[in-house]
Amino acid sequence: MIVQKIPVSILGATGTVGQKFVRLLAAHPWFEIASVAASAQSAGKRYGEVVRWRESTPLPERIAAMTVQAADPGIPGRITFSAIEAEIAGQVEQAFARAGAYVVTNTKTHRMEPDVPLLVPEVNPGHLDLLPRQQRERGWSGGIVANPNCSTAGLVLGVAPLHQAFGIEKIFVATMQAVSGAGYPGVASLDALGNVIPYIGGEEEKLEQETAKILGSFTAGAVDPAGLVTSAHTNRVPVVDGHLEVVSLGFGRRVSPEEAIAALEGFRAPVDVAALPSTPARPVEYDARPDRPQSRLDLDRGAGMTVTVGRLRRCPLLDLRLVLLSHNTVRGAAGAAIQNAELLVQRGYVAR
Amino acid sequence: MIVQKIPVSILGATGTVGQKFVRLLAAHPWFEIASVAASAQSAGKRYGEVVRWRESTPLPERIAAMTVQAADPGIPGRITFSAIEAEIAGQVEQAFARAGAYVVTNTKTHRMEPDVPLLVPEVNPGHLDLLPRQQRERGWSGGIVANPNCSTAGLVLGVAPLHQAFGIEKIFVATMQAVSGAGYPGVASLDALGNVIPYIGGEEEKLEQETAKILGSFTAGAVDPAGLVTSAHTNRVPVVDGHLEVVSLGFGRRVSPEEAIAALEGFRAPVDVAALPSTPARPVEYDARPDRPQSRLDLDRGAGMTVTVGRLRRCPLLDLRLVLLSHNTVRGAAGAAIQNAELLVQRGYVAR
Amino acid sequence: MIVQKIPVSILGATGTVGQKFVRLLAAHPWFEIASVAASAQSAGKRYGEVVRWRESTPLPERIAAMTVQAADPGIPGRITFSAIEAEIAGQVEQAFARAGAYVVTNTKTHRMEPDVPLLVPEVNPGHLDLLPRQQRERGWSGGIVANPNCSTAGLVLGVAPLHQAFGIEKIFVATMQAVSGAGYPGVASLDALGNVIPYIGGEEEKLEQETAKILGSFTAGAVDPAGLVTSAHTNRVPVVDGHLEVVSLGFGRRVSPEEAIAALEGFRAPVDVAALPSTPARPVEYDARPDRPQSRLDLDRGAGMTVTVGRLRRCPLLDLRLVLLSHNTVRGAAGAAIQNAELLVQRGYVAR
Amino acid sequence: MIVQKIPVSILGATGTVGQKFVRLLAAHPWFEIASVAASAQSAGKRYGEVVRWRESTPLPERIAAMTVQAADPGIPGRITFSAIEAEIAGQVEQAFARAGAYVVTNTKTHRMEPDVPLLVPEVNPGHLDLLPRQQRERGWSGGIVANPNCSTAGLVLGVAPLHQAFGIEKIFVATMQAVSGAGYPGVASLDALGNVIPYIGGEEEKLEQETAKILGSFTAGAVDPAGLVTSAHTNRVPVVDGHLEVVSLGFGRRVSPEEAIAALEGFRAPVDVAALPSTPARPVEYDARPDRPQSRLDLDRGAGMTVTVGRLRRCPLLDLRLVLLSHNTVRGAAGAAIQNAELLVQRGYVAR
Repeated sequence: MIVQKIPVSILGATGTVGQKFVRLLAAHPWFEIASVAASAQSAGKRYGEVVRWRESTPLPERIAAMTVQAADPGIPGRITFSAIEAEIAGQVEQAFARAGAYVVTNTKTHRMEPDVPLLVPEVNPGHLDLLPRQQRERGWSGGIVANPNCSTAGLVLGVAPLHQAFGIEKIFVATMQAVSGAGYPGVASLDALGNVIPYIGGEEEKLEQETAKILGSFTAGAVDPAGLVTSAHTNRVPVVDGHLEVVSLGFGRRVSPEEAIAALEGFRAPVDVAALPSTPARPVEYDARPDRPQSRLDLDRGAGMTVTVGRLRRCPLLDLRLVLLSHNTVRGAAGAAIQNAELLVQRGYVAR
Repeated sequence: MIVQKIPVSILGATGTVGQKFVRLLAAHPWFEIASVAASAQSAGKRYGEVVRWRESTPLPERIAAMTVQAADPGIPGRITFSAIEAEIAGQVEQAFARAGAYVVTNTKTHRMEPDVPLLVPEVNPGHLDLLPRQQRERGWSGGIVANPNCSTAGLVLGVAPLHQAFGIEKIFVATMQAVSGAGYPGVASLDALGNVIPYIGGEEEKLEQETAKILGSFTAGAVDPAGLVTSAHTNRVPVVDGHLEVVSLGFGRRVSPEEAIAALEGFRAPVDVAALPSTPARPVEYDARPDRPQSRLDLDRGAGMTVTVGRLRRCPLLDLRLVLLSHNTVRGAAGAAIQNAELLVQRGYVAR
Repeated sequence: MIVQKIPVSILGATGTVGQKFVRLLAAHPWFEIASVAASAQSAGKRYGEVVRWRESTPLPERIAAMTVQAADPGIPGRITFSAIEAEIAGQVEQAFARAGAYVVTNTKTHRMEPDVPLLVPEVNPGHLDLLPRQQRERGWSGGIVANPNCSTAGLVLGVAPLHQAFGIEKIFVATMQAVSGAGYPGVASLDALGNVIPYIGGEEEKLEQETAKILGSFTAGAVDPAGLVTSAHTNRVPVVDGHLEVVSLGFGRRVSPEEAIAALEGFRAPVDVAALPSTPARPVEYDARPDRPQSRLDLDRGAGMTVTVGRLRRCPLLDLRLVLLSHNTVRGAAGAAIQNAELLVQRGYVAR
Repeated sequence: MIVQKIPVSILGATGTVGQKFVRLLAAHPWFEIASVAASAQSAGKRYGEVVRWRESTPLPERIAAMTVQAADPGIPGRITFSAIEAEIAGQVEQAFARAGAYVVTNTKTHRMEPDVPLLVPEVNPGHLDLLPRQQRERGWSGGIVANPNCSTAGLVLGVAPLHQAFGIEKIFVATMQAVSGAGYPGVASLDALGNVIPYIGGEEEKLEQETAKILGSFTAGAVDPAGLVTSAHTNRVPVVDGHLEVVSLGFGRRVSPEEAIAALEGFRAPVDVAALPSTPARPVEYDARPDRPQSRLDLDRGAGMTVTVGRLRRCPLLDLRLVLLSHNTVRGAAGAAIQNAELLVQRGYVAR
């Protein structure tokens, strides 16, 4: 049991993901927001003044009253949640880690570095053991831990039960991603309304590379990427929240839909991961209705941390086809980072 | 030159596709609407009274004043455009063909029958030569000619230049289809707004089967389906008109993006097909901008008869990937049928 | 305190509002669903089989397993929540009331009858005292209590503080109503996407008549309608949930924006109404931000039972202008009916 | 007849309205684009390179090849269409007028100045006679002519027939405005999707003030604003193009719906205005269907220059109620300015 909460800081606290951090951390059982940081022009002002709050729950008054800090490693917080721009994340996040903080980042900058754990706790919690090497090689007392890109998070968790059971060799994935994935103001309404944009810069590469790293094995202090090949088509659709992905999978052997559904339904997180506050009772749910999951209707399962899979059936080209849905700003961003921080505590990197 | 226009009839004239027929035929250089037919409860009334006109151009007054007929083979019209329900299409369309009419149908019922031409005139006009066999075997003086399902129409035309040049063996396709494809009232707004529905009944099968038939070869009086395998994921998105499809293609040999783009840009319809009133100057256009085609912006090229292709690039799993867009109620329905009727005239099945 | 929950039944339990009743009553502190009724073709089957569940929370298993009943007054339940079609509501609801049940209806049929209380509990709880007269005159042991139409519910509650403080004489209201107000399938997506429909059948009359009744005074056993005149323009917009209304108000005397805001902020429900489980802490909230309330962002305040008011400013024609937002399927339908039922218990019409 | 086209320039040619100018002027019978001007960072480059073309028709090649100019009065063009930012419009537009150009502006900056004609040619073409005074007093050889704000344009033209026939004293108007009115990128998709924003900065004031000026009378060299009072509620809805407005009107005398409809249907532009290329055959159309006009369906009448009016009925508070729709980027912006320029030619201010 945690008696005294662990003080945490939020970098990029006024942005879309930063606000989601504030919302999710405001009532967190283990963590307490000790500082909120943002860009220089906001620093020194009250958070409630500078944020354009867009969550549907009210901004907590305690947080509204906090003075926004500059992103300086000296600000209070033993864990640092980072939602800052990729352009500055390299320098800023490293400065925090060097100063002893554990940086749990949603930003892409460090994800693919070989000594940085890229985590989906239900899937590859063992990759966290890259941290000692990271600290040793970089001479840091803190460290950097990353969660994947929003479209990768759903894909990896949704197919992990099948990978663990049968070994995936090939993945075709076409995404239909919500506009909230692009932040605020993000996608212009003239681009979004009644339209599909078949391009999201850098997204296909992220899906293809991050998937292999997360599903890779940790041996001899290094992550060996999974030997699967992914082909991604990423698209923006006029949906507020929720990334829907249609997927075809090829395995090393024949897998029947029934076996696959059984693997999905039998999937559970490792015991200590299942005990984390942000881990849902069912990280993956299979919905047998013929037209589900749907972006708007199935988004909030497991408080946004559950990936819903449906329509599992044979694929004429590979072996199986399916549809999966995940909440892009919870499972795909702030919720994922918070769960990573919980894992850091659970596995003893951060003392209670 | 056609001096006197050919009288045509429209079955299912009050529905969504029926209205599009009316709109497109109202100013057609070769055809003249001679009768409009609909269900028994509309028969006998003025078309303008019973139709809930939803096209953005005004309902032509001459058509509004016409008396709606029952779908009886005796109604005037040498060519019959059919947009009736699949449940009754078998019986009704055959009755018209038996009575000597050329039925150009948008309904799925007869598409996959071995003696029925399933046409995209720029791609497989030679399949029209199934007609004599159809007439002989069925003992009809008229005949039935079909256009493909809306999502197939765009796929087939968009990849035909590549198939002709390089031979496609594998197709992975994920569609993002407009709600107009489901007719009116069709998809409920509570299902469509801010949502993706990853299921359209029967659509994946149509895409997989029709594609092989249309791209097949006509030899010895029969169509030999192309030996390609298609895996389709079909989805409904909150877009009014326009089916966007993301596609991966595998060929028998290595094909570079540059070769493929050259094949797309060099594609032209056969000379007599290019001369049809509904054939656009460029049946396939390649758009090199990185984020195109987009559903809302690129829909109306070639008066809705052009398929736009973009984002041609390598595929990690197969050979090439691309995006294509087609107008589902024009190229994918009424426009396609009218172009088929023009081909019937051009190739002498229907006398001018 | 309520030790044993009161058994209730739901008529029209499979429809949109019926499902909302199931969701809201499943965890209600006072009520317990004892029977679910629907049309003849559903009767006899399991609720989980026949309902097309569209709420975002899972269908409770206990309810899913219940056998659907026909709408017969003999089914278990001391309070009957009605969400049945207006065409049959007259006969069915009266049969239940005659048989001794208290019918709390969301259907329009009985709303404007002089002996039927049309209630917004925070505004006119005293109108409940029409019930004894209703029972006496109709010879019923039960009775019928109605909540207003969804667009009326928000208008009346949002302006009630101003009416109580200053006396409203004139209301100009233009609504922008969500598609969920039309039920399922309701509005076709081809009508809703990227469109506004400036017409909702019967809605303007309801707004104009119901408002006067609810804001009327109860004297000598009858409701004397308020002497105000309302002009309504009702519109359907592509929003899933939430009716936004822009309102101009004329009073008998000059009222400043500051006075009006103070009246809104000072408004509280009568003490016994405030104690009802469904009454929010703040039935009316004033949001001072210049561009609020917004349909999607401010909908869920007070679990959907709070009306948010904003943009209070002078009107060049009448006295004041404002914007208000209410949740049409909670405050405007199922939530309202449940709150009415709570009032029936609180005021002793239904024994605990 | 115009033998040689009049050379015109476009200021702000790369923006949303600027692109619409390019599209509409590319095939104009009287005008020819002689120069396109934009901000300093675009100047010197080819238009096709710097514009992010978003019209659905292709960018004309001749224009794509033009070199973008700085907004300098020396650039070719006897008429200057202005779509520049309001912040710089004062200085830039005046410089052009001083240098002898006729500036036809869509920008708000000069609209309410007493010597600037604010025109809807079908309604107040006589206000153009402010120009000689403007030239005399300001010492200019050119001049500035403005069209109204997009929401004003539809309101004024839609109610002008009623004002001319019966004299309007009071106007209530609530608008539901498309996102294209805010330009590009304009409204964020997270604000627009499934939402209504009940606030558009400055819009209500523009509607209230411009309406009185345009409907005012021109006497003794000045415009005397109409003595009517307008109360506006302006809202942004998730619609791409088309401003829908619900309106209540008060007259000095009783006016029946039948009289009003007759006035709307009998309305015609003055003869020389009717002869302008951009004036539609019917500037105002009355649609008697109960649920029309609708934003998406009725937008393009008269090539976007016709205002559609519907639902004319009694108002319980004022005299009559109605709904009107206009195309905000054609009748409300670029189309309006081009029609104004045509009037300048027709009435001899600009020589053919």
